[in-house]
Amino acid sequence: MAKSHPFTFSMEKFCVHILGCGSAKPTLSHLPTAQIVELHGKYYMIDCGEGVQVTMQRLGLSMHKIRHIFISHNHGDHIFGLPGLIGTMGLLGRTAQLHIHGPEDIRPFLDTILTHYCNGMDYEVIFHPVCTREHNLIYSDRSVSVYSLPLEHRIACTGFLFREAQSLPHIRREMIDAYNIPVSQINNIKAGASWTTDEGKVLSHEMLTTPAAPARSYAYCSDTAYVPQLVGLIDGVNLLYHEATYGSDSASRAKVTKHCTAAQAASIANGAHAKQLVIGHFSARIKDENSLLEEAKSIFPNTLLACEGLDIDIF
Amino acid sequence: MAKSHPFTFSMEKFCVHILGCGSAKPTLSHLPTAQIVELHGKYYMIDCGEGVQVTMQRLGLSMHKIRHIFISHNHGDHIFGLPGLIGTMGLLGRTAQLHIHGPEDIRPFLDTILTHYCNGMDYEVIFHPVCTREHNLIYSDRSVSVYSLPLEHRIACTGFLFREAQSLPHIRREMIDAYNIPVSQINNIKAGASWTTDEGKVLSHEMLTTPAAPARSYAYCSDTAYVPQLVGLIDGVNLLYHEATYGSDSASRAKVTKHCTAAQAASIANGAHAKQLVIGHFSARIKDENSLLEEAKSIFPNTLLACEGLDIDIF
Repeated sequence: MAKSHPFTFSMEKFCVHILGCGSAKPTLSHLPTAQIVELHGKYYMIDCGEGVQVTMQRLGLSMHKIRHIFISHNHGDHIFGLPGLIGTMGLLGRTAQLHIHGPEDIRPFLDTILTHYCNGMDYEVIFHPVCTREHNLIYSDRSVSVYSLPLEHRIACTGFLFREAQSLPHIRREMIDAYNIPVSQINNIKAGASWTTDEGKVLSHEMLTTPAAPARSYAYCSDTAYVPQLVGLIDGVNLLYHEATYGSDSASRAKVTKHCTAAQAASIANGAHAKQLVIGHFSARIKDENSLLEEAKSIFPNTLLACEGLDIDIF
Repeated sequence: MAKSHPFTFSMEKFCVHILGCGSAKPTLSHLPTAQIVELHGKYYMIDCGEGVQVTMQRLGLSMHKIRHIFISHNHGDHIFGLPGLIGTMGLLGRTAQLHIHGPEDIRPFLDTILTHYCNGMDYEVIFHPVCTREHNLIYSDRSVSVYSLPLEHRIACTGFLFREAQSLPHIRREMIDAYNIPVSQINNIKAGASWTTDEGKVLSHEMLTTPAAPARSYAYCSDTAYVPQLVGLIDGVNLLYHEATYGSDSASRAKVTKHCTAAQAASIANGAHAKQLVIGHFSARIKDENSLLEEAKSIFPNTLLACEGLDIDIF
């Protein structure tokens, strides 16, 4: 995280870059699934469909900023971009560790890549298996905590919930000035301290600060059948990306293939009191994605259609 | 091969579609290596860089027509498109066998793909290892014979020589008409028979036919150091694709990395009496590919620069 000025009030960037939002069969409209979550200057990749390294170049997103990749499940349209990405990072002289989180199923593919294509690479790839049946904290740093979200698909599959770390309250500059409080005390006050003036007057933490903006959150749920239990796990989420592979006219196909309709995605957003929903993972059979959008909006109005190159700010 | 009318004289299509001609580091200018050789209505793929299935869609080339894929070597920029291509062929309901020819090194990657991503697929993938140290016939059908070409790279690597099957001579229609030769005899005459009229006059095969166009050939040599022995193996080739990763100003880098300069590629074309040369596999360091073209043309004038989407007819 860039060191901010003690009086900086603006929110740090928290944004999702959609790199691909198609489903398994490739089309000319969409690339296979991949996203970058940008938070406080760091990139966290979610899923890694084929071609992702070229898409990142086209969108001007540097692969050097990726330290963690979260893979939902071991289907090709979510993982076949990994060999190229890992190899290219090596060619570009990466030295920082790369952490890959995902179901145990992806290990053989990863092992094959690392054994046969990464000799002489100057960086280490570390795999962290994720239990897909539990809602666990799987990673945290000072900017974010990432939790698994149990999904229901044809193979083991997990979603991811990104919870921004709660930032410290903002200092009221006029109070600092009025009472000549030394700048050296600001971090203590932000952290909860009060201040006693030379005259013995106690200025409480609350008098000296205004509350920070609430921490934001992002949930990624793809691929999955309709899992109503999700709503409790992501309650109040700022942005939900939920798969909407089909429309309700293909509800039976959605059920068989363990995918969701747009209405089901919207119903999850609604139940979870999400602030915004973005739907994606569109089937190649969908002729007009606006019909999915309309279907979702009739249940959850603040819905967006994902598309390649879309950046969604979370606030 | 489409059944042709007995009097058809036109040559069958023999063409190379360039799908990608970049090298290992991805750029916005080029995709990693892949080509389709189209011959008599069949597609033979050479190398299979990441993203190839999308490129084929964009160029309107059907992946159903591919029966054989020839892989030169086990570097990611020549093979990382395979998982997606194999998987998508399965999703699209392919039933025809797919044959993959390449060095033994590629087997672990192929095995991992087939074991972990191809369950329930309705078609079979058959691997045919190619010895990279010998010049052997590795495949033939009634349209073509494909030979390996020993190359010299940092790992085992082979080129490929496609030799079109010699087609039968053309029937001289005016002779058939003048002597009332039954249409049923035409295939025999094409195959070498003469014809004796009711009056006992013998019309020789040569009188009844004109020679077929000479069989054409295409050689693919990438990735490789300068291998002057190649010229004897591909003498008289109609079209040579030869890698030209660098210009002569980077000759020492070419030597270390076991690649070629444009001048070396042209020298191979010259020595082999090739009719046309197309150079590719450009390093991401190359700022102006025209300098490579000029360098090659100064030695072998009939040189083309490869680019994605380029179709080169062989005649």
